[in-house]
Amino acid sequence: MSTNHEVVIIGAGAWGTTLALVALRAGSRVRLVAHRREMADYMREHRQHPVSLPGVHLPDAIEVMTDRDIEVLPSTSIVVIAISVQHLREALSAWTSRLASARLLSVAKGIDTRTLQRPSELIVTALGRPGRLAALSGPNLASEIAAGKPAASVIAAADAGLAGELVPAFHSDSFRVYRGTDMIGLELGGALKNVIAIGAGMAQGLGAGDNATASFITRGLAEITRIGVASGASASTFAGISGVGDLIATCASPLSRNHRVGIGLARGQSLETILHVMGETAEGVPTTAAALRLARSLGMQAPITEQMHRVLFEDLPVDTAIQELLSRPAVEE
Amino acid sequence: MSTNHEVVIIGAGAWGTTLALVALRAGSRVRLVAHRREMADYMREHRQHPVSLPGVHLPDAIEVMTDRDIEVLPSTSIVVIAISVQHLREALSAWTSRLASARLLSVAKGIDTRTLQRPSELIVTALGRPGRLAALSGPNLASEIAAGKPAASVIAAADAGLAGELVPAFHSDSFRVYRGTDMIGLELGGALKNVIAIGAGMAQGLGAGDNATASFITRGLAEITRIGVASGASASTFAGISGVGDLIATCASPLSRNHRVGIGLARGQSLETILHVMGETAEGVPTTAAALRLARSLGMQAPITEQMHRVLFEDLPVDTAIQELLSRPAVEE
Repeated sequence: MSTNHEVVIIGAGAWGTTLALVALRAGSRVRLVAHRREMADYMREHRQHPVSLPGVHLPDAIEVMTDRDIEVLPSTSIVVIAISVQHLREALSAWTSRLASARLLSVAKGIDTRTLQRPSELIVTALGRPGRLAALSGPNLASEIAAGKPAASVIAAADAGLAGELVPAFHSDSFRVYRGTDMIGLELGGALKNVIAIGAGMAQGLGAGDNATASFITRGLAEITRIGVASGASASTFAGISGVGDLIATCASPLSRNHRVGIGLARGQSLETILHVMGETAEGVPTTAAALRLARSLGMQAPITEQMHRVLFEDLPVDTAIQELLSRPAVEE
Repeated sequence: MSTNHEVVIIGAGAWGTTLALVALRAGSRVRLVAHRREMADYMREHRQHPVSLPGVHLPDAIEVMTDRDIEVLPSTSIVVIAISVQHLREALSAWTSRLASARLLSVAKGIDTRTLQRPSELIVTALGRPGRLAALSGPNLASEIAAGKPAASVIAAADAGLAGELVPAFHSDSFRVYRGTDMIGLELGGALKNVIAIGAGMAQGLGAGDNATASFITRGLAEITRIGVASGASASTFAGISGVGDLIATCASPLSRNHRVGIGLARGQSLETILHVMGETAEGVPTTAAALRLARSLGMQAPITEQMHRVLFEDLPVDTAIQELLSRPAVEE
């Protein structure tokens, strides 16, 4: 059963904890690293996450610890960096020397609002070296995967050999992992789909219907593909499971936080109230700000991103925003 | 308000009747042609469809009649052919001379099981001349459109000028129409998405979850794009609203008949029972048979289409079919 892969997951949020289960199912030896001591203590004692993934048991084989318990990691280790984007640089500062030779897998989805960097770029900056770095993304609603439902994902790295090395540490019957080489497209797909998901939630919250929501998602896919291609990604990545696949899952599922943000806004709730009630990150909110600046820095039109920005940060009413998007003039598609 | 377009719709099913409302909203003069006398009488008297579109009122401005009431149509007329694919050739035989000079718009979605022709090809064959012919497709769940909810669609014709002429006869604030030139891609997208929608319904009916369903839809999109490109379509059409847009609406919505077929099969109902209870066409069923033969005639692998065929026509259990599709070996995406 064991693949003899040594996987260390930094970040014990819903996604990091789920990936601990994924790696365990693939036969890897797994350590899950919580930032706070009380978090690690709780998970060791109760064998479950204190907030997320209710009802999901964490087998004893997942060793839970804190940052301070981790030694310098050898090149045979696979280190999963599961820290949310807006805290990534700061959180990694404590790790610099310990990650100098390990193979790294970035699994965050978002764009840093300050630097407009993707997670893998933030990691390179934080660690001060390019290193052996890959990224994982796909249609991955954490609670379904934690519950053992089937899912698929892509691991991409500029170095195709590295992606191939990492796949077996996570691949199992219930979590199919594919190799890719377009890390830019993979990361931008995972980040930008959250912007579109907020809009799809708004359309659904307004009762616009399945036709209008599907058209909106299609235009969203075109917009994020254009931003991706202008950033150096391949358009075909956006047609794959880490692109349109993740977009569909996030836009369709009530399990998606970003989708729920859109629905809440359409119902007249304030962004503050929605985020407070969820008690969790909705990465699409800061990513919308970053994505708009990214599009502008590329000299591009991004009408959906712009409209989402106006709703989230400039008090544009949701119904006005969606109506304006749905009533663009008839042109060649 | 009036665009002075004269629109004649042949076929008073749910979609033909909905398009009568769409054309009326665009300011066209509209005649809706039912095949059977009793159908026309009912709709004239009650101003609603006898079976489909419950609660939807048909304004008096829509003139309802039968085949026999229609004269030879001039070149200024736009004739919408809204007859289901498997009956199209036969039904058009009575129209040959009357449609000799009108502009035609094909709106059926499917592939003829006998000839493997697309609707526009069937029309050309039936009428014995190439003619001025366009096709319309998009994410178009009829009941939402009939109720006035917003939707978008594409009219494609090899002759871009013709598509441009037809757009204003249907375009309105609530039904946005875009021009296209890839009629093959538009028609194959509209037909083949129903095969994938049956499978997406199966995955959902089995409780596979939103991640697995989204991955399945993504692979379905790749498969129908490959079949389309091998048939002469442009891949980019499948990334547009008549491709992935229609696919998302059909796979996500409980309003889709084909999606409901998949859910019913996953719950252990027989295909006969499901179709009997629905009392309506589920075009994806014959289209699956046609699509598999089409893929084979092109010398292509089409694993999802093949698996759907085995469930629908060869008694393969749904859970086996979906498990086999979800457990394909890990490869480059």
